[in-house]
Amino acid sequence: MPALPPAFDKLVTLLSRLPGIGQRSATRLAFFIIAEPANYAKTLGQSLVESVDHVRYCADCHTLCEDERCSICRDPTRERGMLCVVETVQDLLAFERTGAYQGLYHVLHGALAPLKGIGPSRLKLDNLEDRVATQGVTEVIVATNADVEGEATALYLAKRLKPLSVSTTRIATGIPMGGELEYIDQTTLSRALSGRVALDV
Amino acid sequence: MPALPPAFDKLVTLLSRLPGIGQRSATRLAFFIIAEPANYAKTLGQSLVESVDHVRYCADCHTLCEDERCSICRDPTRERGMLCVVETVQDLLAFERTGAYQGLYHVLHGALAPLKGIGPSRLKLDNLEDRVATQGVTEVIVATNADVEGEATALYLAKRLKPLSVSTTRIATGIPMGGELEYIDQTTLSRALSGRVALDV
Repeated sequence: MPALPPAFDKLVTLLSRLPGIGQRSATRLAFFIIAEPANYAKTLGQSLVESVDHVRYCADCHTLCEDERCSICRDPTRERGMLCVVETVQDLLAFERTGAYQGLYHVLHGALAPLKGIGPSRLKLDNLEDRVATQGVTEVIVATNADVEGEATALYLAKRLKPLSVSTTRIATGIPMGGELEYIDQTTLSRALSGRVALDV
Repeated sequence: MPALPPAFDKLVTLLSRLPGIGQRSATRLAFFIIAEPANYAKTLGQSLVESVDHVRYCADCHTLCEDERCSICRDPTRERGMLCVVETVQDLLAFERTGAYQGLYHVLHGALAPLKGIGPSRLKLDNLEDRVATQGVTEVIVATNADVEGEATALYLAKRLKPLSVSTTRIATGIPMGGELEYIDQTTLSRALSGRVALDV
């Protein structure tokens, strides 16, 4: 059977390594790329090379940046006493979109998942204690996801940070804004109940 | 709000132009690419450039190839009197996998769809008559899809090829092998009925 050109097959193989892209999707993408004006493939190719050449992780918080330290870590107006620990860069961006947080971040790039073989050494934790100890951090807010991995990571961090004189807090779990109690799952509802706060009027 | 590095944003924008990849998927792919060892991005980048540099359309049948003519068109053992017209390169490959066809192909790269603005000029039809007239073609098998666009394209081709002394045929429609009549749709079943053939035993 006559195969497709080797250069095409190679492109399909490389594209199929992307997450969520199987052999069939990769073939469809490759056909699209070939059918586009050639400068699309060339611009994308160049952009890929540039992105790995120019984009790196901030030496302090491990978010993506182009310099040694990111714009948040370098911003003198941010409160340097607060450190919000998140799992991913996307989570950091979600907090930034709220505009409600003025402290610094620490991106773990994952969460503990012993069953998947992801232990503390796979997370960006090396410099966390150092940051807390030397940068005058008074509160570490653990903002990992509210799933099994995120909760386990939060407990692990609380234990690990205990020897340091820092307050470790966890973001609140409860019913989301606009949530109708009838449709909220049991775990969330019981958490919302036990985490009730006084209405000071 | 601090943005992500411009090189990263550019990569996301370019990836989101791919079919079926929205902004969110493109961001996920870009994060994956950044987290992979750098040689993945570089190899993929190089492969993109190579694919448009080396892959082109066969001057005769318009399938993908690396030379002026594809290996099927150059193969002296193929029956040059038969031309199978297909919509896409994937369809050509599907026929090749059967091993049941020994003639040549003609890839249209689409089908007529007036509502989407796809007329005959958008298909690779320029050299079809020329091939039929000069390459001793005796039968053109129209193997476009059995949907509205494919059927319309088949009728169009039959009309267009009428002036040439060539037999134009359409691949059979009917119940697929292993099909259970109970679950076959009405159109397919009535087509299978009207297209019945004599059982010569």
